[in-house]
Amino acid sequence: MTRETGRIEAFSDGIFSIAATLLVLDLKPPAATIPFWQGVVNQWPGYASFLLSFLLIGIMWINHHRLFSHITHSDDALMAANLLLLLGVVWIPYPTSLMAQALVTERFREAAILYNGSYLVLALLFNVLFFTCTSRGLVDKKSTGARVTGKRYLLGIVVYALCFALTWWNVPLSLAVNAGMALFFLLAPCRSEK
Amino acid sequence: MTRETGRIEAFSDGIFSIAATLLVLDLKPPAATIPFWQGVVNQWPGYASFLLSFLLIGIMWINHHRLFSHITHSDDALMAANLLLLLGVVWIPYPTSLMAQALVTERFREAAILYNGSYLVLALLFNVLFFTCTSRGLVDKKSTGARVTGKRYLLGIVVYALCFALTWWNVPLSLAVNAGMALFFLLAPCRSEK
Amino acid sequence: MTRETGRIEAFSDGIFSIAATLLVLDLKPPAATIPFWQGVVNQWPGYASFLLSFLLIGIMWINHHRLFSHITHSDDALMAANLLLLLGVVWIPYPTSLMAQALVTERFREAAILYNGSYLVLALLFNVLFFTCTSRGLVDKKSTGARVTGKRYLLGIVVYALCFALTWWNVPLSLAVNAGMALFFLLAPCRSEK
Amino acid sequence: MTRETGRIEAFSDGIFSIAATLLVLDLKPPAATIPFWQGVVNQWPGYASFLLSFLLIGIMWINHHRLFSHITHSDDALMAANLLLLLGVVWIPYPTSLMAQALVTERFREAAILYNGSYLVLALLFNVLFFTCTSRGLVDKKSTGARVTGKRYLLGIVVYALCFALTWWNVPLSLAVNAGMALFFLLAPCRSEK
Repeated sequence: MTRETGRIEAFSDGIFSIAATLLVLDLKPPAATIPFWQGVVNQWPGYASFLLSFLLIGIMWINHHRLFSHITHSDDALMAANLLLLLGVVWIPYPTSLMAQALVTERFREAAILYNGSYLVLALLFNVLFFTCTSRGLVDKKSTGARVTGKRYLLGIVVYALCFALTWWNVPLSLAVNAGMALFFLLAPCRSEK
Repeated sequence: MTRETGRIEAFSDGIFSIAATLLVLDLKPPAATIPFWQGVVNQWPGYASFLLSFLLIGIMWINHHRLFSHITHSDDALMAANLLLLLGVVWIPYPTSLMAQALVTERFREAAILYNGSYLVLALLFNVLFFTCTSRGLVDKKSTGARVTGKRYLLGIVVYALCFALTWWNVPLSLAVNAGMALFFLLAPCRSEK
Repeated sequence: MTRETGRIEAFSDGIFSIAATLLVLDLKPPAATIPFWQGVVNQWPGYASFLLSFLLIGIMWINHHRLFSHITHSDDALMAANLLLLLGVVWIPYPTSLMAQALVTERFREAAILYNGSYLVLALLFNVLFFTCTSRGLVDKKSTGARVTGKRYLLGIVVYALCFALTWWNVPLSLAVNAGMALFFLLAPCRSEK
Repeated sequence: MTRETGRIEAFSDGIFSIAATLLVLDLKPPAATIPFWQGVVNQWPGYASFLLSFLLIGIMWINHHRLFSHITHSDDALMAANLLLLLGVVWIPYPTSLMAQALVTERFREAAILYNGSYLVLALLFNVLFFTCTSRGLVDKKSTGARVTGKRYLLGIVVYALCFALTWWNVPLSLAVNAGMALFFLLAPCRSEK
């Protein structure tokens, strides 16, 4: 029972792009009663969360794209595993706005736990999706690309589990590792291809 | 007058993915005045409605995808029937946010009636769409897939009518049947294909 | 300088589907202090505007889809004319929410003038788009479909100008004609194809 | 390591179309306590910002579309540069709503600095994307279209830097130049093709 993956990708692209774009709705104009630039500067937690979450969703989209370029056909299990992953993607704007709010309250650590925890769950869901593909023969196993993708997903679990654990010890460091890994994933493949 | 179904699917994918993603806008950060985890826990009705509605929209998308994989060409009647179905999909975030609100007020049953009733109407609209396709010769009738899809849609009416009726007797049970059927539809085909 | 129309359609599909879906954001849960069903019933202006605008955007999408099925290639003028049309589509949620608000205030006529006027402008923009296509040779002129489409667009101007004028005389009638024409456009082609 | 650009375009189309459509969410119905037409007229800053930002996003989409029509294959560097550009696009609704708010307060210049500055950064990101494509051999260099595109992007930097500088001297003029260049970019290619 083989079907083309085109529409699954179209639906996923829709979800990824909307989740990434909705992040901007959390940036509200500052109150008109305080000086303009001060109001803008006061919103740095919103900007920082927006930037980090946009990049993370974008990088997840790139990873999703890479995986699907190796998937030769689809079945219902793939659609179910993909749906669970998309549920995680749609969820991201919520911990993001909690982070933005928490940076100006006393509850920085709690929000970061929820934030880093959400990315840990997403890393797990990526592995569920990949395992679904390999166990049901939906990817071309001979392809090195597919093997590299699988290894990266496993690395993702390790890194996000580390971020999650770091949150109890040092919140800014945990977020820096999260952001740093995002940049590494974004830029590393570019260099290696040269 | 035959046209390709590609753009109908693209428009439908857009509607499904946006309706699914907008659900997260109902999750607002809890007030900063109550303890963080208590605020998060207090929002469980929002999380539960978000989760259930996302899965239901996702599963409806899968069913829509399955149906269109059997449609060989399209006409205006198909576009009209599809538009009515999409109207139902776009409506879902509204009863979802009523449910989330009602779980913490005294009006649990009323919101569940509207919620389960909306899904009953959607099940009917899926059958209108399927009937349009079969009566106008837009699906390949010899295909077993199309026949199975048609039977599932009829089953959908029965199950959601049951959920709707159950709401007057036992609200949590009606929602559990609703959620259980969603999981069954999501997971059942995977097993049968092995 | 010929380009494929695929991406123009994808961008347009995105705009149409998001504008149609955003309409639901105007439906807010009624206040928890009034009885549930009374709160729901009180929101009928919101439901009516939502229903009418969704169907009108959907029917405009169908018309857009029909037109593009006759367009054999694209150029910059087509992209510019299409962008102006999409601007009109994105605008629709705004007069819709003014209508929903006005139905419960004393300003029914004013909101209907803006509402019907917006659709008149959209009908004009559809003709600008069609004229761009014919004058630059982007549609297959021999096709009867293209000629029928062009005639319908001209009819659209007449009908929406009539609705607009009717608003000064009888507001409910003007909206009924608007809705009735939408249903006619939605259902008429189905009958004629048999 | 060559991949098709189809899904990158689909994801980008989603981002562009959602960012353009979300602009309408900033147009709220005026308070019911002031006369209807006065309330509508008072909202002109919102309409003006909506109109300008929609056209600018639409024109950026057209430019993105033109560039990708010359890209023959894709790699990870292209995806990273494209993601940065999309980040800029998603950001636009925020300075837009600051502009709309500022037109009725005393902070017109400050908001225009942020607004024009955002477009300057976007012009830079377009050049980063183009440089990525040329330096990695992803565009067909023999094509005149690609060379013209590259020159336009450089011109974009100059114009938006000028707009940005003008903001300190004369705010309305800086916005007029911004809007005028948009119209020029939108309409110029149509004439030259005849």
